[in-house]
Amino acid sequence: MQILVLNGPNLNLLGTREPDTYGTQTLSDLESLVRTRFKDVDFQFAQSNHEGELIDYLHGARGYDGIVFNAAAYTHTSVALRDAIAAIDVPTIEVHLSNVHAREAFRHHSMLAPVCRGVISGLGMTGYLLAIEALIQPST
Amino acid sequence: MQILVLNGPNLNLLGTREPDTYGTQTLSDLESLVRTRFKDVDFQFAQSNHEGELIDYLHGARGYDGIVFNAAAYTHTSVALRDAIAAIDVPTIEVHLSNVHAREAFRHHSMLAPVCRGVISGLGMTGYLLAIEALIQPST
Amino acid sequence: MQILVLNGPNLNLLGTREPDTYGTQTLSDLESLVRTRFKDVDFQFAQSNHEGELIDYLHGARGYDGIVFNAAAYTHTSVALRDAIAAIDVPTIEVHLSNVHAREAFRHHSMLAPVCRGVISGLGMTGYLLAIEALIQPST
Amino acid sequence: MQILVLNGPNLNLLGTREPDTYGTQTLSDLESLVRTRFKDVDFQFAQSNHEGELIDYLHGARGYDGIVFNAAAYTHTSVALRDAIAAIDVPTIEVHLSNVHAREAFRHHSMLAPVCRGVISGLGMTGYLLAIEALIQPST
Amino acid sequence: MQILVLNGPNLNLLGTREPDTYGTQTLSDLESLVRTRFKDVDFQFAQSNHEGELIDYLHGARGYDGIVFNAAAYTHTSVALRDAIAAIDVPTIEVHLSNVHAREAFRHHSMLAPVCRGVISGLGMTGYLLAIEALIQPST
Amino acid sequence: MQILVLNGPNLNLLGTREPDTYGTQTLSDLESLVRTRFKDVDFQFAQSNHEGELIDYLHGARGYDGIVFNAAAYTHTSVALRDAIAAIDVPTIEVHLSNVHAREAFRHHSMLAPVCRGVISGLGMTGYLLAIEALIQPST
Amino acid sequence: MQILVLNGPNLNLLGTREPDTYGTQTLSDLESLVRTRFKDVDFQFAQSNHEGELIDYLHGARGYDGIVFNAAAYTHTSVALRDAIAAIDVPTIEVHLSNVHAREAFRHHSMLAPVCRGVISGLGMTGYLLAIEALIQPST
Amino acid sequence: MQILVLNGPNLNLLGTREPDTYGTQTLSDLESLVRTRFKDVDFQFAQSNHEGELIDYLHGARGYDGIVFNAAAYTHTSVALRDAIAAIDVPTIEVHLSNVHAREAFRHHSMLAPVCRGVISGLGMTGYLLAIEALIQPST
Amino acid sequence: MQILVLNGPNLNLLGTREPDTYGTQTLSDLESLVRTRFKDVDFQFAQSNHEGELIDYLHGARGYDGIVFNAAAYTHTSVALRDAIAAIDVPTIEVHLSNVHAREAFRHHSMLAPVCRGVISGLGMTGYLLAIEALIQPST
Amino acid sequence: MQILVLNGPNLNLLGTREPDTYGTQTLSDLESLVRTRFKDVDFQFAQSNHEGELIDYLHGARGYDGIVFNAAAYTHTSVALRDAIAAIDVPTIEVHLSNVHAREAFRHHSMLAPVCRGVISGLGMTGYLLAIEALIQPST
Amino acid sequence: MQILVLNGPNLNLLGTREPDTYGTQTLSDLESLVRTRFKDVDFQFAQSNHEGELIDYLHGARGYDGIVFNAAAYTHTSVALRDAIAAIDVPTIEVHLSNVHAREAFRHHSMLAPVCRGVISGLGMTGYLLAIEALIQPST
Amino acid sequence: MQILVLNGPNLNLLGTREPDTYGTQTLSDLESLVRTRFKDVDFQFAQSNHEGELIDYLHGARGYDGIVFNAAAYTHTSVALRDAIAAIDVPTIEVHLSNVHAREAFRHHSMLAPVCRGVISGLGMTGYLLAIEALIQPST
Repeated sequence: MQILVLNGPNLNLLGTREPDTYGTQTLSDLESLVRTRFKDVDFQFAQSNHEGELIDYLHGARGYDGIVFNAAAYTHTSVALRDAIAAIDVPTIEVHLSNVHAREAFRHHSMLAPVCRGVISGLGMTGYLLAIEALIQPST
Repeated sequence: MQILVLNGPNLNLLGTREPDTYGTQTLSDLESLVRTRFKDVDFQFAQSNHEGELIDYLHGARGYDGIVFNAAAYTHTSVALRDAIAAIDVPTIEVHLSNVHAREAFRHHSMLAPVCRGVISGLGMTGYLLAIEALIQPST
Repeated sequence: MQILVLNGPNLNLLGTREPDTYGTQTLSDLESLVRTRFKDVDFQFAQSNHEGELIDYLHGARGYDGIVFNAAAYTHTSVALRDAIAAIDVPTIEVHLSNVHAREAFRHHSMLAPVCRGVISGLGMTGYLLAIEALIQPST
Repeated sequence: MQILVLNGPNLNLLGTREPDTYGTQTLSDLESLVRTRFKDVDFQFAQSNHEGELIDYLHGARGYDGIVFNAAAYTHTSVALRDAIAAIDVPTIEVHLSNVHAREAFRHHSMLAPVCRGVISGLGMTGYLLAIEALIQPST
Repeated sequence: MQILVLNGPNLNLLGTREPDTYGTQTLSDLESLVRTRFKDVDFQFAQSNHEGELIDYLHGARGYDGIVFNAAAYTHTSVALRDAIAAIDVPTIEVHLSNVHAREAFRHHSMLAPVCRGVISGLGMTGYLLAIEALIQPST
Repeated sequence: MQILVLNGPNLNLLGTREPDTYGTQTLSDLESLVRTRFKDVDFQFAQSNHEGELIDYLHGARGYDGIVFNAAAYTHTSVALRDAIAAIDVPTIEVHLSNVHAREAFRHHSMLAPVCRGVISGLGMTGYLLAIEALIQPST
Repeated sequence: MQILVLNGPNLNLLGTREPDTYGTQTLSDLESLVRTRFKDVDFQFAQSNHEGELIDYLHGARGYDGIVFNAAAYTHTSVALRDAIAAIDVPTIEVHLSNVHAREAFRHHSMLAPVCRGVISGLGMTGYLLAIEALIQPST
Repeated sequence: MQILVLNGPNLNLLGTREPDTYGTQTLSDLESLVRTRFKDVDFQFAQSNHEGELIDYLHGARGYDGIVFNAAAYTHTSVALRDAIAAIDVPTIEVHLSNVHAREAFRHHSMLAPVCRGVISGLGMTGYLLAIEALIQPST
Repeated sequence: MQILVLNGPNLNLLGTREPDTYGTQTLSDLESLVRTRFKDVDFQFAQSNHEGELIDYLHGARGYDGIVFNAAAYTHTSVALRDAIAAIDVPTIEVHLSNVHAREAFRHHSMLAPVCRGVISGLGMTGYLLAIEALIQPST
Repeated sequence: MQILVLNGPNLNLLGTREPDTYGTQTLSDLESLVRTRFKDVDFQFAQSNHEGELIDYLHGARGYDGIVFNAAAYTHTSVALRDAIAAIDVPTIEVHLSNVHAREAFRHHSMLAPVCRGVISGLGMTGYLLAIEALIQPST
Repeated sequence: MQILVLNGPNLNLLGTREPDTYGTQTLSDLESLVRTRFKDVDFQFAQSNHEGELIDYLHGARGYDGIVFNAAAYTHTSVALRDAIAAIDVPTIEVHLSNVHAREAFRHHSMLAPVCRGVISGLGMTGYLLAIEALIQPST
Repeated sequence: MQILVLNGPNLNLLGTREPDTYGTQTLSDLESLVRTRFKDVDFQFAQSNHEGELIDYLHGARGYDGIVFNAAAYTHTSVALRDAIAAIDVPTIEVHLSNVHAREAFRHHSMLAPVCRGVISGLGMTGYLLAIEALIQPST
């Protein structure tokens, strides 16, 4: 089973950026957490600040069993990422660390959600773990 | 540990209503599923088609450790439920069976999300299980 | 043949409330009028000011041959009633006594109409009779 | 008793155009149906694709006892037809074959309804018959 | 000096339609009034309920010294009349009998005004006389 | 003299809910305060979280001399409560404890105010006392 | 017969400001033009850049036979001037030198027009003369 | 105890302007009424049609115990008055004689309310008395 | 192979109207150009300023192999033309001489495009030639 | 003669992505098709998922005779690509494979079209060929 | 070289009003700061709470070499100040002490900026100094 | 003291692109100008057309004393750049060469300004110099 965990712009700063909002754990901590919990899954971890590279990562995941995607700021504006998700036809779950609905109005709308299987937001890094659980178990 | 699993209008028809969108399992199936998985939690299950009764259930849950709330249609319009959640100060996770962002525009906005801890949508009954997991484990 | 004639909030005051807009006949007059005209139909008459009770009545009408529904004020705001109509899959005709389009702007939009078979408005109690006719005869 | 049954643009194609939406009966079938049902009424039937001709027909109906008007596409945009209906002071009922509220958003608004006595939509050709009934019997 | 006085939809009913809003004088009264007051001007008077015919009249006025145009209902929606006025390059003054700004919101916007020389509204038939005065005297 | 003091959703929590916004006094404190101050008035006190019950209370107050109504969250969305107030024709004053205009945008609009005699907001429980004063003394 | 000719902000610069838009004649030229043409009318001329002074001038004109008012920039925003015109109950004609509908969108809306008798725009200083004519002659 | 009672544009006409909406009592009547009722308060009464003067009055009230402010038309548009209220830090209650919510839409929004302590509207001159009561008694 | 080339309002003035925007060639030049280039196609050329006649031409083209339609001003407002295109089920390409997206905002939206096969704009008369090419050759 | 054929995000998947919408031919097929048809033109073909690279390609085409640009998802949001096209002053034709107006609302608006010479949409790969034709032949 | 430094409503309170937002220095401190730094410039300093007086000051500055204008609250609403700036044709730089874009939404829009040479905001009193520098040195 | 001067998309063309809007000096001229004027500051100059690279540059400037950022087209749409600025916590001044408020409406809104210290626009390259001055001197 092969899953891509993809993180978008500014998430490379995780753990050092606005810790009140985003916590003190880094992307590397996330990777350890995930690999430890789901030993049987073949994970690819990637992060980029470049919209185009994120598209490339999504294209590269064709044939995977699932994608956990925190597109961060691009969530709200990127038609190109939406088209990429629709094009590759891999079950994708949109994840946000913070509760985007409790923040600025421009973060309430997701361009990606309509072509994802589901959305998990506001649950910190736990959200990634839950998304993976949802992908690896059969729908209830 | 005490958790309220609260379901809103028309969810009593679950399993018989629009199975293409909502699946064939009933609320009762959900309850079994949840109780089986989380044996150590003291659950209260409730459903109502009445906005006022849902408010009463929320008030009744003051002091609980968490609430999993699928407010269904009231999600999009109810200021009163929002105020109730804000008033009781219990961690609440908004859950939707279907991916509301892939449906009519009036389902894209949630009045409740800004006062919830997080949102899980589009993952069917699994979404309830994940929400409970998020409530019972310490934030990562 | 079984038909539910369902009336929403404030319609219990019919005949005494704003007679210039709504006329002087009561809901009871309407029931007599209907039963006299359509002797072979098995009618259920119900009225409630509670959105939740209206949902319950709609659920209770599953298997009926038709519903004539004047949701009054809830017409314009209730996603929950819309979902209930969609869920029960019974032909439903939305009726309004007054011409809602000649009144305040917030009465011009119906949340229910898209999931009803049709709408009749502005024709007073005659509108109920016409709706029943439409339900009991085969489509032309 | 004199009634104008007026049909607007593209309704000359009725019966041949998009039968899934509009059925297979023609305007001529409608006329037979109406004349057979209401033998004592003096009907004028007219159809035009020209907004200006529809205005002329409405002007010509001054003094009639009623008008059944399916303005089709012009319903949503024509201030001129609205002014014509207001000017002639004849009870007019707006009719639509399909349930306009279940179609594109630009069909949800009627420029004409505020100056009509009422609206009947979504009931196919039966809608015309019901509109005539409403016009010929005293208000209930 | 040649001037077209052009009237749009429903103005043929002037004097008989809604006299509280539009007065009791007819278009024919207007013509007498105008011809008596401005004896040296060569007037063409025309009225049509058809948008297309109004375009034709405007095209026919190329080379005239001015146009007084009451487009009535088409004022608010017709891009085609706007294009016609822009195309013929004749000074045109938009006239309205009633004060359109004191009526429904959809009458507050004019599609034509931006390509006219000016607008006169709310002054009854006097408005036509003033418009002609403005056209025949040199700009102050 | 008979006055209904009616409180809407979540106000049963008054004194315990968000004390920074709503203070520490309860509805019961309010009742004492009111009865002590206005000894000659026959008061009915009621609270409900159910929109339908609030409608029922309003209907029950027909013939009263006045109503003081804090509809809380329902203020901003309920067409049904608006219709109930309009239907019963009793002078009604809308009251809010907090200054709704200093809070979220969706609290700035009142569906009820246009059919009430007046509005008092932001003055805490004093607002109820002032509203009663306004109802019991002749207009200045 | 007494008429106030009132000019608003920046019109004191007339003749020197943006001559392409507003021409080269001054307010003083306008006054000569008007007094020469209408010898029998008792005119008051006033200009102010202060919204409050314009209100004062309007109040001072109570009892006059008419007002010609070019409110310039305040036309588009001033509720206070609108209230002043409504309060004094003197026939008022709104005048604009330029065709405001051919300029920026924020100049297309007039706060004043709904309480004026009529509007004349785009006809330069001639517009003032026409407005006075309209005020001094009986409605046609 | 020192309180400023400040009235905005057109309120100098009170008692003579649109008596159906605003009653027949003048500002001078209001002053008598207030001084008679609250003998121990040191009142300053002021009215101006000038936005700038109203700002000056507000600045002059720094250190007062309260302000009752009917900004009339400026309520709906003046950022400058809002800033003045926020700047002086004196408890201010916004008052309106009429029920602004039952009038034109542009009167429904208040620029000032968010920086006032509260709002009282629709209660005629009684509203001023209630506002003063609210200012002089300790919050309940 | 049979193709209708249909031109809408004001295009009869082509070559004489606003040559900076529309060039100096006439509709007749266009017809020559087209017939010379595509000798094997049976063309019908038509132009009308009347929305109703354009509908009639579209109806008359049922069974044709394609339509090239420059609806000019009606493009942006006509639901009736949209319905006509949808009704006749002939491949239709919308053409505009000028680049409508570089002009006024109300020209950016097309009511027709959603029911056409494609759109070509901004390429002058060449656009008609390209549209015909697209219709006569098999899709690539 | 030198022409850049530039394709934007996700178009590298052409032929494999959503074939119902985009067909089964690849970008490489397009290149063959183009080179075969227009043997005398010096073509540069490029595709990128990166907005920045697309800008770089546009900058690199300064001095070319034309650009055929399918910006795909970036069409609807990219101010930067619009500025790049405006900056380089090379005739550019916007092309879309599908009829964007028949898809989601956010695809109806083009940020690029106002600075392009024209737009061709909905004609599949043929659209590219037509765009090249338009660029290489003199305007008609 | 002659420069007007003009300050709008409530800025007379500078140094005493909301020091967290606006700092503790007064307008008089600003004047000293400016005169000390730019000894060779002939400055006029003015402040007013009256929109009309600000217009008068702007008119009085015709012929000056530049204006530094902090219109404060009037920035967001005043068409009259915009017209005054456009009328006098003196290079004007809009200055704000605070970062208006980080405050309420109604402060994000400037009516004046489009007719100013530039805008400097968020830099406190330094912003005035920078604006003067920009005015006195030749454009780079 | 360390300052990043960062320029966004298309600014590499400065001096050659649309000189009427942007002048004839290049980015290299700007660098000389800046280094000459501020000899004691350690500057980093960077430009990129890639949103992702701009994010990377911003991340790389953590610990700097300030950033002067002309994000050009990305100013109006980029949530990702906004998040980057907020994340790094370095005083940032947004600069624009042209007066963006005098251009198209979509350039009036800045996504970045709310998280910057201030904005300088419309002052050409001088704007960069002023921004650096503001960063290097203590707040006044």
